Amino acid sequence: MTADLTALAAELPDGVLVTDPDIVAGYRQDWAADPDAGTPLAVVRATSTEDVQAAVRWAAGHRVPVVPRGAGSGLSGGSSAVDGGIVLSTERMRAIAVDPVTRTAVVQPGLLNVEVKQAAAEHGLWYPPDPSSFEICSIGGNAATNAGGLCCVKYGVTTDYVLGMQVVLADGTAVRLGGPRLKDVAGLSLTKLFVGSEGTLGVITELTLKLIPAQPPRSTMVASFATVDAAAEAVLAITRTLRPAMLEFMDQASIGAVEDSLRMGLDRSARALLLAQSDAPGAAAQEEVAAMVAACESCSATEVFSTDDPAEGEAFTAARRAVFPAVQALGSLLLEDVGVPMQALPTLIAGVEAIAAACGVRICVVAHAGDGNTHPLIVFDPDDADETVRAQRAFGEVMDLAIRLGGTITGEHGVGRLKRDWLPNQLGPDVMDLTRRIKNALDPDGILNPGAILT
Amino acid sequence: MTADLTALAAELPDGVLVTDPDIVAGYRQDWAADPDAGTPLAVVRATSTEDVQAAVRWAAGHRVPVVPRGAGSGLSGGSSAVDGGIVLSTERMRAIAVDPVTRTAVVQPGLLNVEVKQAAAEHGLWYPPDPSSFEICSIGGNAATNAGGLCCVKYGVTTDYVLGMQVVLADGTAVRLGGPRLKDVAGLSLTKLFVGSEGTLGVITELTLKLIPAQPPRSTMVASFATVDAAAEAVLAITRTLRPAMLEFMDQASIGAVEDSLRMGLDRSARALLLAQSDAPGAAAQEEVAAMVAACESCSATEVFSTDDPAEGEAFTAARRAVFPAVQALGSLLLEDVGVPMQALPTLIAGVEAIAAACGVRICVVAHAGDGNTHPLIVFDPDDADETVRAQRAFGEVMDLAIRLGGTITGEHGVGRLKRDWLPNQLGPDVMDLTRRIKNALDPDGILNPGAILT
Ligand SMILES: Cc1cc2nc3c(=O)[nH]c(=O)nc-3n(C[C@H](O)[C@H](O)[C@H](O)COP(=O)(O)OP(=O)(O)OC[C@H]3O[C@@H](n4cnc5c(N)ncnc54)[C@H](O)[C@@H]3O)c2cc1C
Ligand SMILES: Cc1cc2nc3c(=O)[nH]c(=O)nc-3n(C[C@H](O)[C@H](O)[C@H](O)COP(=O)(O)OP(=O)(O)OC[C@H]3O[C@@H](n4cnc5c(N)ncnc54)[C@H](O)[C@@H]3O)c2cc1C
Repeated sequence: MTADLTALAAELPDGVLVTDPDIVAGYRQDWAADPDAGTPLAVVRATSTEDVQAAVRWAAGHRVPVVPRGAGSGLSGGSSAVDGGIVLSTERMRAIAVDPVTRTAVVQPGLLNVEVKQAAAEHGLWYPPDPSSFEICSIGGNAATNAGGLCCVKYGVTTDYVLGMQVVLADGTAVRLGGPRLKDVAGLSLTKLFVGSEGTLGVITELTLKLIPAQPPRSTMVASFATVDAAAEAVLAITRTLRPAMLEFMDQASIGAVEDSLRMGLDRSARALLLAQSDAPGAAAQEEVAAMVAACESCSATEVFSTDDPAEGEAFTAARRAVFPAVQALGSLLLEDVGVPMQALPTLIAGVEAIAAACGVRICVVAHAGDGNTHPLIVFDPDDADETVRAQRAFGEVMDLAIRLGGTITGEHGVGRLKRDWLPNQLGPDVMDLTRRIKNALDPDGILNPGAILT
Repeated sequence: MTADLTALAAELPDGVLVTDPDIVAGYRQDWAADPDAGTPLAVVRATSTEDVQAAVRWAAGHRVPVVPRGAGSGLSGGSSAVDGGIVLSTERMRAIAVDPVTRTAVVQPGLLNVEVKQAAAEHGLWYPPDPSSFEICSIGGNAATNAGGLCCVKYGVTTDYVLGMQVVLADGTAVRLGGPRLKDVAGLSLTKLFVGSEGTLGVITELTLKLIPAQPPRSTMVASFATVDAAAEAVLAITRTLRPAMLEFMDQASIGAVEDSLRMGLDRSARALLLAQSDAPGAAAQEEVAAMVAACESCSATEVFSTDDPAEGEAFTAARRAVFPAVQALGSLLLEDVGVPMQALPTLIAGVEAIAAACGVRICVVAHAGDGNTHPLIVFDPDDADETVRAQRAFGEVMDLAIRLGGTITGEHGVGRLKRDWLPNQLGPDVMDLTRRIKNALDPDGILNPGAILT
């Protein structure tokens, strides 16, 4: 341990500073397995806001990069370690207090999303945002990436549920933004600015979340289509008049991958599958599902199935959530997260198919179809140098296509390091300049997550 | 006209630059009638983003303050003119295009909120945010203040519906942020930062709004209470398990003021009235209203009335919206907008009563009770110097009380100029510093709405 690190260790409780290379190695990458991830000096497994402050102050004093890290389930290299930097892990900060009267929860960043949901449920309350990774991602990571999920098409994304936070700034100052007020416009919208900032503006050490009453059980619909276009048309037909609580899309490759691993009896011959739910109260759920079934039938669905049994519905949802791990079993992945204005959805999916053919790689597509956010998953064999290059070419071409269609390179996973080079193409020089001005104002020495979002 | 203004006039279409003192005088104040409002050099009634850019560029070159102005319905002196500055009015920028497929609207800032709602309704769609002023406030002003309203308790506030914007920065550059993507996390959350920035960071010249399908007709409940505490208890009983589409509170003074002007037959003897609505689909609306009625009865409501007739429900809502104008008929007003965590609502309302008594002024209280946001309206006679001083004292004491209760000085109206001196007490020096760093990064010469939010 260097003399300087010893000084940091002295400021932290025992065991918080970790330098054992074997342990440190486990904090180098997130789920995207960024090949360019660096090797950090140390990991700080903070137990409190004070620990985070001590670490950031030390890092600021030594101009050492700090990479904040939640549970490492990120898909864009946002928490890839930086050579010579420290990784600031929140995994030990796990307290939660639910207040059923204000319908809020005050929670430390390291708690998993699923644990927040469970704590809320104990009071008959619900924390809606539900990334597919809800069992393995931290709530702090969710706030830092403004995570989406399956129910977001009706219930909104993480930022819609963050009322306040405590955040440690680049100089180690801890500030409180917002709080347990359901409406608060006092001063600039700073809470909202920090949500989605991917660890580049500060380290979130506490969140105040808005909860809502538990919603009624869900009715579910599954529809198969002979063409992707027909499924995309059905999506538009549904969102035109209804507000489903979930509206997901799987292409044939995704269906196959899930069937290979789960054997649920999904129709492998279908070119596309839609999975939709309603949580409208009482009889309205059945009516809403019936309307969705009718929409799918009018768009030439080949098979439509519906159920009011929540357990059966959850089994389909679990299948949808299993797509990432199932496709990962096929090879290494480059994970896209492109979104487009709703009417461009068919063009985007067709374009991705064309890119797959042109680059000679397999691309599975799964999508939060109801809000135009798709995940083309590019499968490749990392030991095949040529295929790796072709996969990387496809990765860029999919983002270029989304930008051409007036879309975004990332709907929910964040820019991180892996999509950073495409960001200027989407935002343009003036917005990049604006971004940099804010970054410089808040982190003039660039110690917070350098290389994420911005070069 | 000074030589310099002539240069500006030359850059603008005919009639856009207005210097006639009689006309200019009409742009000095907003609805709060800030007595310290200045006298501007001129008003720019922009017709396009280019006009706004020309004006801001000119102002930047001459270090002349620019006060952006929508419809002037603001309640915090946010668009009070500045001596020697220009007022940049958006009232002539009124285009709208609704896209029913993406369920978005692209709208210029000067269009009124009600006109956005109407354009959406033509496509069977709904733009939810509904400030009581919806017939007289601009959508640009709504975005600049992050306006709330009556349905926000269920449907959220303006920021939840702003997907993107075009904004002219302090140097005259126009940038596009976000866009018609329902989910987009590419880069920092800049769109969200500009929402609620009260004209201090840029001039919004276009908005991309999210629309949702029109909701079912509403069922309505009105309950009277013999004490404010009982009504506040009923509010908590309702929000604990239900999601009403509206949950409003009126105290006795507000009931009386509305009755004086509208003669609706409200119970003048009640100490408090709750007005709630459900827009749940089908039979669920009646069930939800029945549950709210039961909650009020269990909290000792003296009278409860419910109706499924939308027109009857709208008449009560109109009465609620009439409180501000009705109370204004009683004298000059100092308008509060304090919010607290839900469980502090009874304490806040009782505290306001005590302040009224101590200061010897009349304070009517109306509230968006379902989200803890109250509007104590302090009535005073501006010709009575002593009462004016006492009213001003009460104005500050109410905000001090809200801060002590862990609340906010403004839930939806914004800080503007009239609440600016209280902001540091709520946010503290570190958050004020953070705010200033962002302001300086985006508007280094401080030409955009100087004196609003920050001194
Ligand atoms: C199988 C699978 C499915 C997924 N499905 C979804 C989905 O449906 N929707 C979705 O949005 N995402 C999804 N993800 C991506 C991922 O789970 C989310 O991005 C999640 O929010 C990351 O949380 P984390 O705790 O793992 O963060 P990490 O991966 O540790 O970090 C993510 C980013 O946030 C920053 N960060 C983390 N904690 C903090 C903090 N306390 N303060 C400041 N910055 C911090 C990091 O620096 C990094 O930039 C999925 C991932 C997997 C593996
Ligand atoms: C009777 C009455 C009832 C009200 N009820 C509510 C309510 O229920 N909820 C609520 O939230 N408000 C309410 N208000 C307050 C007011 O209507 C809102 O604040 C509204 O959003 C202001 O819009 P405006 O167009 O009138 O803006 P203005 O008053 O003109 O300006 C308000 C602020 O926004 C800035 N601004 C305006 N346009 C732009 C732009 N294009 N770009 C940048 N900055 C801009 C101004 O500089 C100023 O700081 C009420 C007002 C009245 C008179």
